[in-house]
Amino acid sequence: MSYFSEANSAETVNGRMGDQTDPRLATVMTSLVRHLHDFIKDVGLTQEEWEYGIGFLTRTGQICSGERQEFILLSDTLGVSMLVDAINNRRPEPATENTVFGPFHVADAPIRAMGENISLDGKGEPCLFEGRVLDLDGKPIEGATVDVWSDNADGFYDVQQPGIQPKWNNRGRFITGADGVYAFRGIKPVSYPIPDDGPVGQMLGQLGRHPYRPAHMHYLITAPGYQKLVTHTFVGGDDYLTSDAVFGVKDTLIAPYERVEGGDTLWRSPFDFILVPN
Amino acid sequence: MSYFSEANSAETVNGRMGDQTDPRLATVMTSLVRHLHDFIKDVGLTQEEWEYGIGFLTRTGQICSGERQEFILLSDTLGVSMLVDAINNRRPEPATENTVFGPFHVADAPIRAMGENISLDGKGEPCLFEGRVLDLDGKPIEGATVDVWSDNADGFYDVQQPGIQPKWNNRGRFITGADGVYAFRGIKPVSYPIPDDGPVGQMLGQLGRHPYRPAHMHYLITAPGYQKLVTHTFVGGDDYLTSDAVFGVKDTLIAPYERVEGGDTLWRSPFDFILVPN
Repeated sequence: MSYFSEANSAETVNGRMGDQTDPRLATVMTSLVRHLHDFIKDVGLTQEEWEYGIGFLTRTGQICSGERQEFILLSDTLGVSMLVDAINNRRPEPATENTVFGPFHVADAPIRAMGENISLDGKGEPCLFEGRVLDLDGKPIEGATVDVWSDNADGFYDVQQPGIQPKWNNRGRFITGADGVYAFRGIKPVSYPIPDDGPVGQMLGQLGRHPYRPAHMHYLITAPGYQKLVTHTFVGGDDYLTSDAVFGVKDTLIAPYERVEGGDTLWRSPFDFILVPN
Repeated sequence: MSYFSEANSAETVNGRMGDQTDPRLATVMTSLVRHLHDFIKDVGLTQEEWEYGIGFLTRTGQICSGERQEFILLSDTLGVSMLVDAINNRRPEPATENTVFGPFHVADAPIRAMGENISLDGKGEPCLFEGRVLDLDGKPIEGATVDVWSDNADGFYDVQQPGIQPKWNNRGRFITGADGVYAFRGIKPVSYPIPDDGPVGQMLGQLGRHPYRPAHMHYLITAPGYQKLVTHTFVGGDDYLTSDAVFGVKDTLIAPYERVEGGDTLWRSPFDFILVPN
């Protein structure tokens, strides 16, 4: 029996766990307590800093609502969301890499015919998105659902502007045929800031960081017999590619945007998605 | 320039900090991010566990109110509060050790005459508390303020039961004379559970831990020219001494409770407090 001390702190806390604790919970909590105590010891956290931390976490929790999840934003901006995503989605080459899902997906978007336009508000620079959904051997996958969503030319998703943007603006689902091809029209997406009027925005400001995400298209691609793919394609050349506020960019996810001469469509962005079998 | 990856995750996040970041903030955040990422990697945190964590932190923030601070409770039950207290209050022998302040102190309690009774509700086992406030050489400190507070015989502080307990029940301030002596009457305190009807209580349950604190008297002792002392004295023999839910017990803070024969006072608990000069 020993009482808590600076020297034995984490061991004392972890030693208090009951024998019947779920083994996985015990593993997670033991590591969490150890790292938390090591952090406090490494920096010699002051009483005032601890109070600031308690206040920060409290404000972060209190600003959460049905429409806002500030703890996910905190996780995103500290690279935690991307790290968890990376650990849980290790894939063999040449499979398409995952990236963060983000808060703006809406289930059951309209299923549209190949080539149809998902931009319903008439804003932005029209762009043709096309490519194939393939397996690891380069063979087309039939019956894959390509669920796509993006912001509009003002940098907002439709769900952020109900009543202003048409419902399902810049969203749609496309189902591949035997050739694995998908194709749709939309707009070249634009960069936008994450919500920065709360505690996380204050943190970014204190750390000298901006709140912007580089322009990207969101994809959720599913096909029977294959692992789900949650990813983005990024607009090559975007100013924020190397400073994405949520660290979502991967080299392999930067898509070309080719200028199209003549006609209404100004851009063409080709990209193939490669899925891993279950 | 390198994009975020599992291998470089913490370095990439920390590398994003601006040059103008306050140096102390940079130190704290760099260590926090490194330990947070190491924790996630060490346990291979799953997507579902991450979601549970986000939900837990959100519930913890949302239950906070003017009367309840669940993040402090979380800090207390993970040994974080005691660790911060220990790091910030390292003292030379034979100085009295610090322990957690707790949420139930009220400023400006009545200043009472030596020997007066602070138990105003007539409940509990009367006890005489007495001793001296001394410096490191054992010399009495004159003009020290001994601010004491405890629960009543039902295990509640007066502020937890407004309208039920008399105001200032089991609270008072005593100011030492030239002999450094303090003395007052109160009750032998009883053990009680921390609030366990929220997320922290659920966590304790999942970890097989009880929510009880061993019986204790709170002291805040100040004197001109000396460091502030925030401490408890614990009731020797209490069932929860070795399993305090907030890890506040130290060997040196366990006080004797001697049975007193005859008279109304049933117990006597002697304890000397030793302060460190500024």
